[in-house]
Amino acid sequence: MIRSKIILFGDSITEDSFQFGGWGASLAQHFCRTADVVLRGYSGYNTRWALKVLDRVFPTSPAGDGGNETAPMAVIVFFGANDACLPDRCSAFQHVPLHEYKQNLNSIVSFFKKKWPTTLVILITPPPIDDDARLRYPYVPNPQGLPERTNEAAGEYARACIAVAGECGIPVIDLWTRMQQFTSDWKTTLLSDGLHLTHDGNHVVYEEVIGKLRNEGLSVEALPDDLPLITDIDPNDPLKAFM
Amino acid sequence: MIRSKIILFGDSITEDSFQFGGWGASLAQHFCRTADVVLRGYSGYNTRWALKVLDRVFPTSPAGDGGNETAPMAVIVFFGANDACLPDRCSAFQHVPLHEYKQNLNSIVSFFKKKWPTTLVILITPPPIDDDARLRYPYVPNPQGLPERTNEAAGEYARACIAVAGECGIPVIDLWTRMQQFTSDWKTTLLSDGLHLTHDGNHVVYEEVIGKLRNEGLSVEALPDDLPLITDIDPNDPLKAFM
Repeated sequence: MIRSKIILFGDSITEDSFQFGGWGASLAQHFCRTADVVLRGYSGYNTRWALKVLDRVFPTSPAGDGGNETAPMAVIVFFGANDACLPDRCSAFQHVPLHEYKQNLNSIVSFFKKKWPTTLVILITPPPIDDDARLRYPYVPNPQGLPERTNEAAGEYARACIAVAGECGIPVIDLWTRMQQFTSDWKTTLLSDGLHLTHDGNHVVYEEVIGKLRNEGLSVEALPDDLPLITDIDPNDPLKAFM
Repeated sequence: MIRSKIILFGDSITEDSFQFGGWGASLAQHFCRTADVVLRGYSGYNTRWALKVLDRVFPTSPAGDGGNETAPMAVIVFFGANDACLPDRCSAFQHVPLHEYKQNLNSIVSFFKKKWPTTLVILITPPPIDDDARLRYPYVPNPQGLPERTNEAAGEYARACIAVAGECGIPVIDLWTRMQQFTSDWKTTLLSDGLHLTHDGNHVVYEEVIGKLRNEGLSVEALPDDLPLITDIDPNDPLKAFM
């Protein structure tokens, strides 16, 4: 049995996605008998750095990492929250200018499309930002006392991400808009520190991802089960199911 | 970057291990930058059925599923809860006699040892059973009104599992004993329906597994990180880390 794979490629919101109630873990459970969910999350990374390491994360080698030999059924690309750090604030070293972000995202998609032509590539925009919360939960010293990320900037990167998806002809999850429309309390219900996701925030991402996969024909129901389910095993002749 | 893999091979307690707070998801988060956790859980399966499907779950193919081409760093084998169903009760079709359970488990370990000589194989015994709860949460019609699993029988299978580990010279997690010693409230604190695990029960398994891996030198600290951590990136010259 060679299982399908879903690769999650992104920053800390991806790296943390197997935490309690995380969207990656929920995906893995959802596809537990149909596909493997492969975690490639790199906390703090922007698209510039992601592009630098693409060949190492997804090597082409005859000796085979297999995860790469066989085309995955989907790759979820989820970068932008770090690119959108403001260039004149305390996390400036992670900032990537908007036009370069678009180019980089385009290059990442092209890499996957060239490597695995049949694989579904889905983009996710950066989430919205709670500017005030970013002051309460600093990741690095912040002598300026100004938020290193703002919702306004995140929105620009989200729109750029959507534009890239349009250019590439691939699906995109507009998480920036979706979360702000989800509830008026999105800043506290969906975000834990103004950037990262709560359980509810993770659930929104999970629901959006399985919805988008389903739209493309990649639902649990449409995929073959890995071996007979217990409900398909005849209690009077269990071994029949394994012949 | 070819990541190490940890394969989880077992029944429903494994298949469900990426649920909210599950032990598989916790392992995946723990090893998020060092190893992939690969889920091979088959709800309802006993060792007899597991043995029948071993070649299909772990195929040897030059075309490569890679998960199998490269030897994983560890395989966690967690069967016995279904084998231990009583032969004269409502889940008898899942029952496997004690001596056959031992033989089957031995054969499963031999399969991995032959396929991947350097891979660490760890056995986990079945968990303890809350006999009364098994009556309150039936999985199949139970006209007899008697529990289909008992803690006494689970204990016999646990001891058999430990004996197999001894014969094979591999580590074993005595979950049956560990859980009963963990708290006097183990029936409600660690089990959700007399068999499956609560969040706390999942946490016990997670802690036992990382402890056992650590004993064998397979800790996060001992394994190489997949690409530079954000803390290793120089804010004044970020790209240096990627040369």
